[in-house]
Amino acid sequence: MNMNTILANRMSTVQRSFIREILKVTEDPEIISFAGGLPNPRFFPKAEIAEAAAKVLTDDGGAVLQYSTTEGYRPLREFIASRYKQKGIRVKPENILITNGSQQGLDLVGKVFLDTGDLMLLERPGYLGAIQAFSMFEPIFQGLSMAEDGVDLSQLASALKRQPKLFYAIPNFQNPSGISYSAHKRQAVAELIAKSDTVLVEDDPYGELRFMGEEFPLIHKYLAEADWDKSILLGSFSKIVAPGIRLGWICAANEIMDKLIIAKQASDLHSNFLAQRILYQYLLDNDLDGHIVRIRNAYKQQRDLMVQMIAKYFPAEVQYTKPEGGMFLWVTLLQYISTMELFEKALKEKVAFVPGEAFYTDGTGKNTLRLNFSNSDPEKISEGIKRLAQAIKS
Amino acid sequence: MNMNTILANRMSTVQRSFIREILKVTEDPEIISFAGGLPNPRFFPKAEIAEAAAKVLTDDGGAVLQYSTTEGYRPLREFIASRYKQKGIRVKPENILITNGSQQGLDLVGKVFLDTGDLMLLERPGYLGAIQAFSMFEPIFQGLSMAEDGVDLSQLASALKRQPKLFYAIPNFQNPSGISYSAHKRQAVAELIAKSDTVLVEDDPYGELRFMGEEFPLIHKYLAEADWDKSILLGSFSKIVAPGIRLGWICAANEIMDKLIIAKQASDLHSNFLAQRILYQYLLDNDLDGHIVRIRNAYKQQRDLMVQMIAKYFPAEVQYTKPEGGMFLWVTLLQYISTMELFEKALKEKVAFVPGEAFYTDGTGKNTLRLNFSNSDPEKISEGIKRLAQAIKS
Repeated sequence: MNMNTILANRMSTVQRSFIREILKVTEDPEIISFAGGLPNPRFFPKAEIAEAAAKVLTDDGGAVLQYSTTEGYRPLREFIASRYKQKGIRVKPENILITNGSQQGLDLVGKVFLDTGDLMLLERPGYLGAIQAFSMFEPIFQGLSMAEDGVDLSQLASALKRQPKLFYAIPNFQNPSGISYSAHKRQAVAELIAKSDTVLVEDDPYGELRFMGEEFPLIHKYLAEADWDKSILLGSFSKIVAPGIRLGWICAANEIMDKLIIAKQASDLHSNFLAQRILYQYLLDNDLDGHIVRIRNAYKQQRDLMVQMIAKYFPAEVQYTKPEGGMFLWVTLLQYISTMELFEKALKEKVAFVPGEAFYTDGTGKNTLRLNFSNSDPEKISEGIKRLAQAIKS
Repeated sequence: MNMNTILANRMSTVQRSFIREILKVTEDPEIISFAGGLPNPRFFPKAEIAEAAAKVLTDDGGAVLQYSTTEGYRPLREFIASRYKQKGIRVKPENILITNGSQQGLDLVGKVFLDTGDLMLLERPGYLGAIQAFSMFEPIFQGLSMAEDGVDLSQLASALKRQPKLFYAIPNFQNPSGISYSAHKRQAVAELIAKSDTVLVEDDPYGELRFMGEEFPLIHKYLAEADWDKSILLGSFSKIVAPGIRLGWICAANEIMDKLIIAKQASDLHSNFLAQRILYQYLLDNDLDGHIVRIRNAYKQQRDLMVQMIAKYFPAEVQYTKPEGGMFLWVTLLQYISTMELFEKALKEKVAFVPGEAFYTDGTGKNTLRLNFSNSDPEKISEGIKRLAQAIKS
């Protein structure tokens, strides 16, 4: 059988995630890895999750283990809606759909909006998981440059004239760059979106992980109520509770939500109900905000140390972002250096990162790289940055 | 914003699952529902799952709650491969991908194979979840009639000449009809597939629920080794353990598996790892086969009773299948009776079923209906069939 003739066209362009392939290389315990996007497992609430699991299975095991609704567990949706409300974003539980992490949110948004050849806008560099998810629906990507305070507005304004269906953005501590949008940029993006026929897909997995600087509302909040149907929010429990429970959500206006629910039904009927019930019980019995403060404090120390070590050991011409939250730091080397080649050298020094070109849809960014600081304890950060500096200098 | 212009074409044809809408209607506790496809929660191993959850979270919580591999938990994949081996099907753990129930398997198969306008074959009536999942990729469906011993071979032979990409079949206790393929039909289907350029997607969620009659191997086993790349198997823990853990699998040859893994990465990175670890621990510490025997015995009693009651109370001209396993029974009324209209009358009698036309892609089947016998205890079956007979007679 000839595979090339029987496979769908979309499979000819999509590759396996380079990051996930890298994660396999870095399973060697001698390698210090800044490659993955993993939260620090030290802060997973293991005992509390175990207690929640015992409780829901004992009290309501028949229901917990049965099929459930596509939309997700109602009290969990109410919890998410009420957290939005605390941030001044008024949404109803009906506007929340529980997904398998926010990655599935991307897939569902792609399913609902994208036909082959449709134009969509991304940040440049952009989140690899989003590029992968949307690629499956064969859009044409246009990347918009990122400045230190967010997306380039003139590029966005002119790109919106071409009537793209979607603009996908991570306003807080963007993956991979660590950049956050200024209040001015958020306001300006909202105004441009309001005037356009484009839906803003605002992904915010890291927003709660701010450990310094001023917090700004999501771009959604800068939109007038009449334009709420132009905004889709994605969220996740992966970074504030744990990724292994694989739960995130989409928040969208009614008409879009109806379509997302159809797409979700077709994709997997509903999200893991056992996990939803365990998570909700955990949230009910514990102080999530207190837990997040502990994570922030640790990540701040790790970020500060990584920035210090880079300042001390990297060549002076190396540029890097100094994020105010999140999990990543973005490094730009001199133009002629290939971080793909550097990756091989770094592996010999027993340290790993993600070469930046994976985050570009146009083949550029070859002198950039992403470093994760959330999943390494201080000793590893010190030692790892020294090793990486060694590799760069060689 | 004009939704019709911004949504993807695929959303204009796909509807919300009528079954899932029905399930909402039937939440009224006074209604006896034969509508859902739910296993009986009496047999969910609640205490054992609770024990398994406590164990994995206590022993290995950091890993259990972290991101994991796209392919799924290796020991769980080994468990599935070894169960296939017991049935004479030799596959490696590398050929198993863990999914969010077998419904996600359908979505991934659609993603990997189907371009808009591609032809694919289904049984007629066919499984609604599959119709929904594949619809998202906008194929042209061709339904093949089902006889009492499986699909119509001459229809299959002539349809394969049109080079469909896929033939989706449920060889054991098909949903919705309850029909199982004879050994002869399995052999014949394998021979036709071997000569074709079509991939057989063999879904077997109910195969382990045989409570009478002779068991035959999956169609896969009738294929020569050289043709294994023409067969994809789908399986699920939903009916033999519990649906709330939302875990199933795809089994495919290497080259197809590579593509399925890419599609899975793009869809949601990986299946719920907490649930995978809990399930595996449960399987390790308990006797799954003994558990399945208990389910089978109960379902046999429920099926026997439903068949008896139908024979006693339904008008003589009503035809119905007498399945040897699974969860469903298929009823055909006189040609002029609309089961959609009957549904409204039945609701007034406080009994529910699924009108059969939902399982046809060509608008036929209006005088058919599906009854579920797995999720009703004997008293409800007796009373419910009496009520339904009343509605039919009126």
